[in-house]
Amino acid sequence: MLVLDLVATLVFGVSGGLTAVRLRLDVVGVLALATLTGLGGGWIRDVLIGVTPPAGLADWRYLTAPMIGGLVTFFLHPQLDRINATISVVDAFGLGLFSVAGALKAVEHGLGPLPSTLLGLTTGVGGGVLRDIVIGVIPTVLRKGELYAIPAVAGAGVAVLGSRLELTTPVVAAVAASVTTGWRLLALWRGWTAPEPVRAAAAP
Amino acid sequence: MLVLDLVATLVFGVSGGLTAVRLRLDVVGVLALATLTGLGGGWIRDVLIGVTPPAGLADWRYLTAPMIGGLVTFFLHPQLDRINATISVVDAFGLGLFSVAGALKAVEHGLGPLPSTLLGLTTGVGGGVLRDIVIGVIPTVLRKGELYAIPAVAGAGVAVLGSRLELTTPVVAAVAASVTTGWRLLALWRGWTAPEPVRAAAAP
Amino acid sequence: MLVLDLVATLVFGVSGGLTAVRLRLDVVGVLALATLTGLGGGWIRDVLIGVTPPAGLADWRYLTAPMIGGLVTFFLHPQLDRINATISVVDAFGLGLFSVAGALKAVEHGLGPLPSTLLGLTTGVGGGVLRDIVIGVIPTVLRKGELYAIPAVAGAGVAVLGSRLELTTPVVAAVAASVTTGWRLLALWRGWTAPEPVRAAAAP
Repeated sequence: MLVLDLVATLVFGVSGGLTAVRLRLDVVGVLALATLTGLGGGWIRDVLIGVTPPAGLADWRYLTAPMIGGLVTFFLHPQLDRINATISVVDAFGLGLFSVAGALKAVEHGLGPLPSTLLGLTTGVGGGVLRDIVIGVIPTVLRKGELYAIPAVAGAGVAVLGSRLELTTPVVAAVAASVTTGWRLLALWRGWTAPEPVRAAAAP
Repeated sequence: MLVLDLVATLVFGVSGGLTAVRLRLDVVGVLALATLTGLGGGWIRDVLIGVTPPAGLADWRYLTAPMIGGLVTFFLHPQLDRINATISVVDAFGLGLFSVAGALKAVEHGLGPLPSTLLGLTTGVGGGVLRDIVIGVIPTVLRKGELYAIPAVAGAGVAVLGSRLELTTPVVAAVAASVTTGWRLLALWRGWTAPEPVRAAAAP
Repeated sequence: MLVLDLVATLVFGVSGGLTAVRLRLDVVGVLALATLTGLGGGWIRDVLIGVTPPAGLADWRYLTAPMIGGLVTFFLHPQLDRINATISVVDAFGLGLFSVAGALKAVEHGLGPLPSTLLGLTTGVGGGVLRDIVIGVIPTVLRKGELYAIPAVAGAGVAVLGSRLELTTPVVAAVAASVTTGWRLLALWRGWTAPEPVRAAAAP
């Protein structure tokens, strides 16, 4: 479980590092965006539920995982660009893992079903949102053309429901994470997107 | 009181939702910006004073109010565009309510007059600031041409002063909120703005 | 020590105020950016380690220092533009002070060497990062062409090492802050920059 978590953090770190490389930032930017993308979602969740210092800050293994991802990107980004599809697939597994783990942690700390589901979503997408906020663009997860948040909410919701029904946690976690990851992979493969507002809005 | 609070949250949610619709975001963007605008100010305040999880996260009624605002926007935004003036008026009431409630909550948790006043301001304008940060524009409240923060500070300050003088809380809250809301409505009506730096700065 | 800290906060406040003046914001924008730049790094650190309310929020002296910096900027910015070099030098002292004080506070609260070093960095650069996030530009500290974060990490790391070795705190703090400030001043003087990713990335 810890290994899975660290691998997901590393992959999210690579995503942050690649963003920094594309913006031609230096080594500080690469490491900072990698760390923020890999750990930011968990930091926000832990601060909101009052777990301070956050696990992803106090434990050096969590801190080093995204930095390794960032350093790999720093040195090997031309090769990484070629395996973009692979990164998207691993990212989908990370999304499932983070969303479900985040939701279950919120339940453990006594939050209700709706807050726990939203904190699962926050854990899954928060790092990427922080990355995009720092570089001043509208977060990818909010823009049209990607189905990313809805699978995360679904998996987090299934996890919360399962823990309400007092099912065995590892089973619940595995099923819930599969919902998120599977739906996300299908969306990538089929090009599914989220619904848009009725009628086109006037140009801004 | 709770009803007033929920209505204000819903209206702030509509404001966030309208921003998302104008940027042509999908349903995820509409709901996320609505929630952030409606509840973000209270979240920042509660995290800063150590109330975790924040009331606006733990209570499903607070979570659903801005989402309802967001969904209404999602489906009815062409009609909402026509009642923009009404929304500004309701928003002025929300600003008064949030700023005063935020300042009084900070006082209750033992903070001094200056921090409490600033936390009142944070509660009133924080959601809109987060909304603008997420979409990558300079927060409306910081830009020229609107008098928004100063009435919020004034109302929060009156509330803090009143509670220092140990006046009856409901009376203090009503007077203080009227200061903010009244001043804001006058500013809207008269086109008042905040002072600008002496002499024009060189173009950036 | 308190005086040094307040002077650093005031200088960081001037930096935030100047940014606001250049963007032609009004008095609200000047005060808000000054406060955020002067105190934001400490707020993030304190929220992450669970010290709420943050010292920089609860103590009116910390709150007023950056506001005074902001007001000075508001009225005297044409003169301040002429002493930009002086401001950079004082800022380098502030960076050293904040990074080292932040790292030592994290150690005191039981965090390990790596988290404490990163929280030192956060304290030193966090205010400027928040300032840049609010105005929607990529944080200066992440961009190429400046050596700012690495001296901060170095000083924070020296402070953590010194406290691990149980050396006298004032000596450790003075040496560590000199590392950050000295390196930063040398970088300013010599035009040093941080390493960039291998091979140029494709244009974004």
